Amino acid sequence: VAYYDRLNDDAQGILGYVSEFRQDFHRHPELSWCEFRTTAVLCRELEKLGFDVSWGKALWGDLKPHNLPPAEQLEESYRQALQALGDDDPYLADMRGGYTGLVAQLMCSENGPRQAFRFDIDALPVTESDACSHLPHEAGFSSTAEGKMHACGHDGHMATGLGLARIISERREELKGQFTLFFQPAEEVAGGGVHFAKLPQLQDVQRFYSVHLGIVDRPVLVCDATWIAGSVFDVVMKGRSAHAGNNPEFGRNALLAACQAVTGLYGIARHSDGVSRVNVGGMSSDNANNVIADEARFCFEVRGASNEIRNYMEARARQMVEGAAAMQEVDVIISPRTRFENHPNHAHLARWIKEQAIDFGLQLEEVQDAYQVPASEDATFMTRVVNDQGGQGCHLVFGCPVKGGHHNPTFDIPDHLVAWGSSFYFHLAKEFSMEVNIKTDPSL
Amino acid sequence: VAYYDRLNDDAQGILGYVSEFRQDFHRHPELSWCEFRTTAVLCRELEKLGFDVSWGKALWGDLKPHNLPPAEQLEESYRQALQALGDDDPYLADMRGGYTGLVAQLMCSENGPRQAFRFDIDALPVTESDACSHLPHEAGFSSTAEGKMHACGHDGHMATGLGLARIISERREELKGQFTLFFQPAEEVAGGGVHFAKLPQLQDVQRFYSVHLGIVDRPVLVCDATWIAGSVFDVVMKGRSAHAGNNPEFGRNALLAACQAVTGLYGIARHSDGVSRVNVGGMSSDNANNVIADEARFCFEVRGASNEIRNYMEARARQMVEGAAAMQEVDVIISPRTRFENHPNHAHLARWIKEQAIDFGLQLEEVQDAYQVPASEDATFMTRVVNDQGGQGCHLVFGCPVKGGHHNPTFDIPDHLVAWGSSFYFHLAKEFSMEVNIKTDPSL
Amino acid sequence: VAYYDRLNDDAQGILGYVSEFRQDFHRHPELSWCEFRTTAVLCRELEKLGFDVSWGKALWGDLKPHNLPPAEQLEESYRQALQALGDDDPYLADMRGGYTGLVAQLMCSENGPRQAFRFDIDALPVTESDACSHLPHEAGFSSTAEGKMHACGHDGHMATGLGLARIISERREELKGQFTLFFQPAEEVAGGGVHFAKLPQLQDVQRFYSVHLGIVDRPVLVCDATWIAGSVFDVVMKGRSAHAGNNPEFGRNALLAACQAVTGLYGIARHSDGVSRVNVGGMSSDNANNVIADEARFCFEVRGASNEIRNYMEARARQMVEGAAAMQEVDVIISPRTRFENHPNHAHLARWIKEQAIDFGLQLEEVQDAYQVPASEDATFMTRVVNDQGGQGCHLVFGCPVKGGHHNPTFDIPDHLVAWGSSFYFHLAKEFSMEVNIKTDPSL
Amino acid sequence: VAYYDRLNDDAQGILGYVSEFRQDFHRHPELSWCEFRTTAVLCRELEKLGFDVSWGKALWGDLKPHNLPPAEQLEESYRQALQALGDDDPYLADMRGGYTGLVAQLMCSENGPRQAFRFDIDALPVTESDACSHLPHEAGFSSTAEGKMHACGHDGHMATGLGLARIISERREELKGQFTLFFQPAEEVAGGGVHFAKLPQLQDVQRFYSVHLGIVDRPVLVCDATWIAGSVFDVVMKGRSAHAGNNPEFGRNALLAACQAVTGLYGIARHSDGVSRVNVGGMSSDNANNVIADEARFCFEVRGASNEIRNYMEARARQMVEGAAAMQEVDVIISPRTRFENHPNHAHLARWIKEQAIDFGLQLEEVQDAYQVPASEDATFMTRVVNDQGGQGCHLVFGCPVKGGHHNPTFDIPDHLVAWGSSFYFHLAKEFSMEVNIKTDPSL
Repeated sequence: VAYYDRLNDDAQGILGYVSEFRQDFHRHPELSWCEFRTTAVLCRELEKLGFDVSWGKALWGDLKPHNLPPAEQLEESYRQALQALGDDDPYLADMRGGYTGLVAQLMCSENGPRQAFRFDIDALPVTESDACSHLPHEAGFSSTAEGKMHACGHDGHMATGLGLARIISERREELKGQFTLFFQPAEEVAGGGVHFAKLPQLQDVQRFYSVHLGIVDRPVLVCDATWIAGSVFDVVMKGRSAHAGNNPEFGRNALLAACQAVTGLYGIARHSDGVSRVNVGGMSSDNANNVIADEARFCFEVRGASNEIRNYMEARARQMVEGAAAMQEVDVIISPRTRFENHPNHAHLARWIKEQAIDFGLQLEEVQDAYQVPASEDATFMTRVVNDQGGQGCHLVFGCPVKGGHHNPTFDIPDHLVAWGSSFYFHLAKEFSMEVNIKTDPSL
Repeated sequence: VAYYDRLNDDAQGILGYVSEFRQDFHRHPELSWCEFRTTAVLCRELEKLGFDVSWGKALWGDLKPHNLPPAEQLEESYRQALQALGDDDPYLADMRGGYTGLVAQLMCSENGPRQAFRFDIDALPVTESDACSHLPHEAGFSSTAEGKMHACGHDGHMATGLGLARIISERREELKGQFTLFFQPAEEVAGGGVHFAKLPQLQDVQRFYSVHLGIVDRPVLVCDATWIAGSVFDVVMKGRSAHAGNNPEFGRNALLAACQAVTGLYGIARHSDGVSRVNVGGMSSDNANNVIADEARFCFEVRGASNEIRNYMEARARQMVEGAAAMQEVDVIISPRTRFENHPNHAHLARWIKEQAIDFGLQLEEVQDAYQVPASEDATFMTRVVNDQGGQGCHLVFGCPVKGGHHNPTFDIPDHLVAWGSSFYFHLAKEFSMEVNIKTDPSL
Repeated sequence: VAYYDRLNDDAQGILGYVSEFRQDFHRHPELSWCEFRTTAVLCRELEKLGFDVSWGKALWGDLKPHNLPPAEQLEESYRQALQALGDDDPYLADMRGGYTGLVAQLMCSENGPRQAFRFDIDALPVTESDACSHLPHEAGFSSTAEGKMHACGHDGHMATGLGLARIISERREELKGQFTLFFQPAEEVAGGGVHFAKLPQLQDVQRFYSVHLGIVDRPVLVCDATWIAGSVFDVVMKGRSAHAGNNPEFGRNALLAACQAVTGLYGIARHSDGVSRVNVGGMSSDNANNVIADEARFCFEVRGASNEIRNYMEARARQMVEGAAAMQEVDVIISPRTRFENHPNHAHLARWIKEQAIDFGLQLEEVQDAYQVPASEDATFMTRVVNDQGGQGCHLVFGCPVKGGHHNPTFDIPDHLVAWGSSFYFHLAKEFSMEVNIKTDPSL
Repeated sequence: VAYYDRLNDDAQGILGYVSEFRQDFHRHPELSWCEFRTTAVLCRELEKLGFDVSWGKALWGDLKPHNLPPAEQLEESYRQALQALGDDDPYLADMRGGYTGLVAQLMCSENGPRQAFRFDIDALPVTESDACSHLPHEAGFSSTAEGKMHACGHDGHMATGLGLARIISERREELKGQFTLFFQPAEEVAGGGVHFAKLPQLQDVQRFYSVHLGIVDRPVLVCDATWIAGSVFDVVMKGRSAHAGNNPEFGRNALLAACQAVTGLYGIARHSDGVSRVNVGGMSSDNANNVIADEARFCFEVRGASNEIRNYMEARARQMVEGAAAMQEVDVIISPRTRFENHPNHAHLARWIKEQAIDFGLQLEEVQDAYQVPASEDATFMTRVVNDQGGQGCHLVFGCPVKGGHHNPTFDIPDHLVAWGSSFYFHLAKEFSMEVNIKTDPSL
């Protein structure tokens, strides 16, 4: 029996609730910065649970989202949300243009610590499987949005957040202090976390938790999950076209330069201090067969176990691309698209979580201390702020076998894990709330 | 004064006529296999001039066009032609599906030789210039079809053919034998020439002429223009995708294979027997930045001064592509798209044309014997048939300064050249008609 | 104060002795399989200390060394050893042809366990620094052999072995069982360890220790040092030469194929299960500037944290090289040169060593449990045999700051570390000897 | 019967003489700038024939040879020449250090034009074939110098020069004016021609002939042979070494940069104005398999039908090499080694030679007007000087079937061709001598 199949009363109590919301979100996936319906549904439910909710431009203030999709796509998504929820939906109006996501807060009657939890809410451009072995398909809650899918479990993250909100709401009398839930947009494009890290609601937070479901492909709780640093760059090479038969010497071959850059990129010497990665994402060049290419485009990403390794990879990658451009005498523009940071969790908090997990009923072999996920997360921007201001932030993984793998058309996770997660989060919240009380911290 | 500015009476007489048609064709460019309106306009005019015209499926018989554009594009073009000429146009119905082009024949009262002329009729996917220095724009006969343009002079070729038809029609009493005009579609994709070479109307032809306007960028008639051989191939590489961060070792990188193939292709050792060329046309691979590419597509062309050199380049190119695929353990499919052949003109005819040019008033320095155009032509398929069956075929260039270069948005050629061309072609036709007569060839 | 600067009486007693031998070995470096003088010096001293020594063909039996240097070089080295030690040296004769290395054994009066220690003895083709900051140069014991140097500390390894032998010899009355010292040749070419693993003296060994000095660049004892797997391959590409001006198409360019293979090799997708490496060692192609290269040679190595990762890298590397050859239609021969295995230490022994180290006076922070050295070692072949036959083998690192780095012209290590190492090894030997006694193991 | 098998009396008379010398030269090949024995033998014979001979430092004056071989090689060759001819040879002393080659002049009694002929004298680093089908081997006049061979026919060139000298000497009474024979060293490294073009003996020369035997592989005289331009460059790339396992990120890989440069070089877009070529000559990098290469060396050549095309190739090649270095952040030094120029022959002289050839008995089909040899020649430096100063220079080819091809171990040419060449050169010399006389040119 997996740890998340051993549900306590809290979890049992919300299982139906979180399952319903998770399936609703799964049916209506929205891409990064287009989470209009998603945000509105969350706002409505959290207000119903008694939380103070901030959203839209009131939440965003002077901040502006970046890495937005093309304006038409943004508008079309917004239009679809209006269609789904009605033109008079009280939440949507303020989100137009990509101001998605929300912050929900609840203050208990007694003073106490400020604790915060972060959940990401966007879906992926993946077409969901219709295989009979794919549970969401068979159970009838597959994506209804062509070419979009919650294939990374953010539907489960949101449901975990709602489950937690509901338990907090129901048992608020046992708690002290303030609870803040961040429902952050655009994690997949390293967009939302950068901005949410600047929100005033993050100030003075003493405990900050973020989580990812799945990941390790086996039933184990990771108390100290870190993420590798990464950067994505867009490259445009511009040469000069020429007729490949009549006067090839006149051309400056942007496609050949791009190809040489690609072979160079994959050959960057790896760093001995830890994992490094490089990959080229797509390529396009539209010249006819008898024309020397005057333009080629591609993007590439580099990753590193630490920010330093990532920076090393970045610097070498730029040299590769610029050198290849120089070989063919073409111009090159390298534009940063996104950057993910590696940031350590607060060591004390990670250890405390482990103790709590054991206390909560997990076996020692169901708990893993440290694990570096070979992927990236923008929650690290928020963790850094909390740790830097003297609080304690930590990223967890509620691990489980992952059907199909993340970002795959057959990705799926169990509802039990969601309910278990809400109840475990509540356990952490309550324990810290009590612990601080006992210590009668004068600063609270 | 350029040779084509010295117009004889024939040329003067048709100058307005050919100019009007050339401008009409220029306004209404149609891409390869979509020359529906163009073919209908030509049919109507040639029937008016008294020619017997064959078109559509009646002309094509068992032959089927190849290298067709996507079916929707073909249908859309057809629909536009219907819109332009009316649903009841008597010519269009039979062309649906790409059966464009026509053959027009006229038999004189007296027996005589069979002479044939070939004109190509398709336009290019080029957006015409709206610079004030671009005469078609300033004179108001620019392309009205967005993104399409007669940027290779085929509008002039057709007008030359109509001018010739009109003179023949008007002076048919002075002529003997049969005159066949081939208006061939889809030259730009090496499509039409392959099929027209199989038409029964080409059998027993004793003289076969094809021509290109422009090319040499100076006022000179090339009597013996040959074209280099070429082939175009489509390549698809199929590997295996994998998350570039989590398990790159699982991937088989089709994009990297494609890039290595490209760098290999450009490095093929050149042939010492004559010109060779290689070029890569476009590339596309759609993977996300964090996914190892499972597919990449590109096309490439090779050319050679002779078929043998082209074949050498083909063989080496295949090795490059297959070897690069093997390097990355990806599958590869190399599909031939088009092939142009190099074929010599009939030497006697080329010399005879030169004599006639002098006789027609050209200075020795206005005539060039041999020139190999560093490009390709599918008229060579027809020339080969004629020469092989004992006739005499030759490709000419009516050379002139070429504004902007072929396939360029500012390409333009003078109307005088068109009228001159019609009159010179008539001169050749009449001279041979007379010459054979004099010799009282019993075989005619 | 570094741990190795806290010398016990044993270490103090042999400090001068090991220092003298280490300096002698440092002055007279000999390359792999050419350790004639070195072996003879060791034999003489170990016999003097009362050990039974086996060497030369008597030791090698049916085994034959591989990866030998060219025959002339082997002979020249042998000749120099004869010159140094005299034609009548009793040890040299039996080593001719590369049968270097020795095994020294001492049986105590009382029965007891069989314990073995392995030391490697070959030097490197490095020219020693004559910088004034380089201690061996300033202290006057630099290499006297042009272009050769003990730049990896094997001189220290041998001195450690002699120091251990001397303490054992002096205190043999306190010991039980049998002590076997393997002085193994040709570690740098993964030659000696492969063969020494097959020696009968390794059978029934219960404890097997091997060690490397330096490595971690700080004063710390590594109790459980593992080494990554690796393989080295020689590649010959054979094409066809041709005059690069007259008939390049006739050539098949082996150098271009080699260059494409090299760019491919560095771009192999890295393995997510652990460290992987690839490098190309040297390249040579001798064609004149106007000749297309008919031959190119290079070697490459791949490494992996595990044998599986190394095998993955090997398989992909072969594909790269073979695919690149196919691109240029050249033949290729890939010949394995050497292979290093990754093999785990015996976990119980590693823990026991840690306890002994603490017992011996090291602080907890001076001891490190596990460390995977990002390099390779052929002692793993011997460890595997011991572990497989039920004994316990472990590789240690006596870590220290390493001046200049391994394989560098300014490499140096402190004499204190050598003396400390001898005394620590003696401690391990004696403790196990006693421990087994106490347990009155009936099998001994 | 080949044209050169129809020998006139002059040719018959010298056949044995030229054959003997050609075989002697063939037996004793000397590499560029090492033609000590060769020069001495020529000096002695030409003085015997009554010519004034200049050689050694007296000839070279302030000029200094370049592209010399290593000093030891030069000295060793000189020593061998001393051994062959005796320490007291009157010619050798003045040549030491590479001052080889000579100029022989003969003034006729009557005033007349200044005519000059140039012959190159160096051999190649090729090991001669000992196949029984290789005539020099079977006839017993193979190279006696290991690894050196007259594999380009310069032995025949020298013999042609001596044959001409002998006929001139014997029939000097029939001639007018001055005859200058340049025996130029170091053609193979584009060394000698550069310097000989500056010799005062070239001033005021009215007719200048240079010739190559063989080349076209059929019996035909080429009256107007031009050579393509070319350049050779040496490249050194310097990076930074690092242990490929321990810290690859520290390295800057010079070998990888070199390989990327090579793949780039072969892919330079070819020039549409005429033949272009590129080739990489050899590569060396000496790093061990576990060391990232800190240095790599290679050389490359580019060629072009014209100097402009060659210059284009040079510029692009530099970009390729510099860009590839930038990709790997390594330093690069590109050093020009040699440069060959393309220079047109004097058109009038070429036509005159054709007339003389017909007059001399050749059939029209045995004469070819223009041919561009796809290789390079440093006689063009001298031709340029003559043409620029108002004289007439021309390069001829005495074509014949070439056994084995130029620079091949089985290269051979017929002795008849040498004798015929001497007699034809004499014919040209005498005719011009007479012609000028007839015209009573006042300037002479």
